Amino acid sequence: MPSKKRKKKTKLVSSPVVKVDDDGDASSVASSSSSVSTNVSDATCVDTCQNLNVIQKLDLMRNDFATKIYGVLNTIKDVKKDVREFSGRMDLAEERISSMEDVVNTEKSKLEEATKRITFLSRKLDDLENRSRRSNLRVVNLPEKVENPDAVAFLEKWLCETLGRSIFPTPPIIERAHRLPGRQNTDRPRVMIMKFLNFQDVVRVMRAARQKGRVMYGDQEIKFFPDLSAEVLRQRRRFDDIKQRLRSLNLRYGIVYPAKLRVTVNGQTREFEDPSDAEKFLQGIQNTDEL
Amino acid sequence: MPSKKRKKKTKLVSSPVVKVDDDGDASSVASSSSSVSTNVSDATCVDTCQNLNVIQKLDLMRNDFATKIYGVLNTIKDVKKDVREFSGRMDLAEERISSMEDVVNTEKSKLEEATKRITFLSRKLDDLENRSRRSNLRVVNLPEKVENPDAVAFLEKWLCETLGRSIFPTPPIIERAHRLPGRQNTDRPRVMIMKFLNFQDVVRVMRAARQKGRVMYGDQEIKFFPDLSAEVLRQRRRFDDIKQRLRSLNLRYGIVYPAKLRVTVNGQTREFEDPSDAEKFLQGIQNTDEL
Amino acid sequence: MPSKKRKKKTKLVSSPVVKVDDDGDASSVASSSSSVSTNVSDATCVDTCQNLNVIQKLDLMRNDFATKIYGVLNTIKDVKKDVREFSGRMDLAEERISSMEDVVNTEKSKLEEATKRITFLSRKLDDLENRSRRSNLRVVNLPEKVENPDAVAFLEKWLCETLGRSIFPTPPIIERAHRLPGRQNTDRPRVMIMKFLNFQDVVRVMRAARQKGRVMYGDQEIKFFPDLSAEVLRQRRRFDDIKQRLRSLNLRYGIVYPAKLRVTVNGQTREFEDPSDAEKFLQGIQNTDEL
Repeated sequence: MPSKKRKKKTKLVSSPVVKVDDDGDASSVASSSSSVSTNVSDATCVDTCQNLNVIQKLDLMRNDFATKIYGVLNTIKDVKKDVREFSGRMDLAEERISSMEDVVNTEKSKLEEATKRITFLSRKLDDLENRSRRSNLRVVNLPEKVENPDAVAFLEKWLCETLGRSIFPTPPIIERAHRLPGRQNTDRPRVMIMKFLNFQDVVRVMRAARQKGRVMYGDQEIKFFPDLSAEVLRQRRRFDDIKQRLRSLNLRYGIVYPAKLRVTVNGQTREFEDPSDAEKFLQGIQNTDEL
Repeated sequence: MPSKKRKKKTKLVSSPVVKVDDDGDASSVASSSSSVSTNVSDATCVDTCQNLNVIQKLDLMRNDFATKIYGVLNTIKDVKKDVREFSGRMDLAEERISSMEDVVNTEKSKLEEATKRITFLSRKLDDLENRSRRSNLRVVNLPEKVENPDAVAFLEKWLCETLGRSIFPTPPIIERAHRLPGRQNTDRPRVMIMKFLNFQDVVRVMRAARQKGRVMYGDQEIKFFPDLSAEVLRQRRRFDDIKQRLRSLNLRYGIVYPAKLRVTVNGQTREFEDPSDAEKFLQGIQNTDEL
Repeated sequence: MPSKKRKKKTKLVSSPVVKVDDDGDASSVASSSSSVSTNVSDATCVDTCQNLNVIQKLDLMRNDFATKIYGVLNTIKDVKKDVREFSGRMDLAEERISSMEDVVNTEKSKLEEATKRITFLSRKLDDLENRSRRSNLRVVNLPEKVENPDAVAFLEKWLCETLGRSIFPTPPIIERAHRLPGRQNTDRPRVMIMKFLNFQDVVRVMRAARQKGRVMYGDQEIKFFPDLSAEVLRQRRRFDDIKQRLRSLNLRYGIVYPAKLRVTVNGQTREFEDPSDAEKFLQGIQNTDEL
């Protein structure tokens, strides 16, 4: 009997620290301790040394309790250690987040600054591009191949003859002339671009063309346009709707470089950079007229 | 009596798993188990079957202990599960932080690169802008309206007459001329900008004006200036202080394009891009002179 | 004896909540509870009031158990609280990460957009730079100092005389001329850049030089080159290898502005923007020839 108890005691003491396996559950541990108690209650208790037996059982239980609590505390210790480690990881993670937020905010400001500079450069470059094109004129509807073999010589001569000697006492000097890239065999001839040496000749051609009303090459009506950048053309197109309405109202208007609408009503001139402002202005005029 | 014990046992066994509620505390659980022990100690223990009673109590206690430990272990299991889940969340969070740090570092480098390119473009664009303005001259102090109706014709004629036929055997050709935007009715006339067809005419005007000493329009002294970009003017203004000191020391100096100070001392010429370098140089000269 | 027990009981009840110190371990707590159980088993159990004693021991143990469990539960409560706090920190951290990921993604897109705009601006600016240089020519091998004192006048006269009156019925007008920066006292004279007023004169010089085969200044052979931007020159140099091979194959080729290779084989003309494409084309030709 003592050996049996000894064995039991040993078993309890030597039982490994109660540990909840990471992937297991606690029920197995609990049921084993439950079965121990069942064994104890099955024992007969009629011995005269019963009290000693009870005390021993008490001791065993106490040991068992201590061992289990020890195990539980160790488990908690492990959990606490895990939590502590998390605390460290969390501190580090939060520091990294904070420092990254700082970096990101700084970079965000820098990018905003960079974007502003890009916008500034874009405008400046577009302005410079348009300035460099100011001595150019676009010739629309000039039949293909008539300029061969020497476009510059052809245009210098043709402009003189068509617009008149009074406009060009001496022939205009053209530095370069070429067709815009595009498909050659379509109904519409490709646009011709000519660069005058002197901007004054651009002014003369435009003025003479306006005065003549129609400039013809054979039976083709030729149109001259300033050579504007794609960006300026895009901005000017925003006024297309309002221009149509101004025409239908017989109001005088014009486009001012780079992309402003100038409207003249009752001798008063207004300029608009934004089509919606022009829209409101026009609305106001129409309301006044209706009164 | 047995039924009472039975009831007690049942109560203990059927007691729900000890669980620390997320928002509650453990004291209620502890006090209830404490009250159980008080009840037990209040019981009378004079029965002849006392030992059996003790054994039963022992069993009950053991069961109670097992149940409580079971509950505790389950609770720990839950906590461990929570911690494990945190581990997963933390792993994920750390991965996200790491990958974001990588992204941010990459983007940071890209932004640095982009900023360098912007600075490069700004300089190039400023240079190009100044080149495109090289055939321009600014005319300061020319009374308003004298150029009407044709500023180009007026300037071509006036420059010839004022600076002399020897400078311009044939009249200079001006491509464009206009007043800078500004308020018209102030004491000072708005600055006029004229663009010559040929840069050589800019050189001729500046040389002739320097040789004449004073160029007049009526009783107004007219000044000619190169037409520089805002950026170059800003950079040149950094030398304003040092220029004043050079004048007071009767030292020869000039500004070299775009914004360098050239100082000539005892036949030796030095150029400075940075005003502070010029400052040190000047300090050195003054110290030498004082010896 | 009762007082002793009383004391023990008091001690147990008043014992502080079992707490696993953050930096300590659970073993000390466990061993102390173990020593308590040893003391109990050392006690003599021959009293007639033994049963009462056992019941009291049972009570003590129950109290001890309750206290320990209470402590354990409190400890778990603390851990749970820690975990709960982590949950909050984690939620916050994850929110910060998420919102930063959003910001970073947005900024990344913006930077990509900005970079595209920069590339667009770079190309446009390079194009504009090359346009502004189109009226320039580089003169290589012209001996130093021959242009003094007036480079423009010298070049206008020398070009007329060297290339012939038939090329220049009237002398070409040069706006500016200067040597490129560089060391003056080397074997090779510094490159001279001249800017013609009219692009047509650039065309005339290049055509005349090609027709003459060799243009000499004294015993020096002079070469004329278009004045291209550094970027375009860099792009053109990528074709250097393939050009050498084309020469060795006696194939006609040329470089088209800005940096395209044009190859003519059997009357067929092909243009390449990428040297590797030209490489493949050439490989194809050679394979065909070998058949």
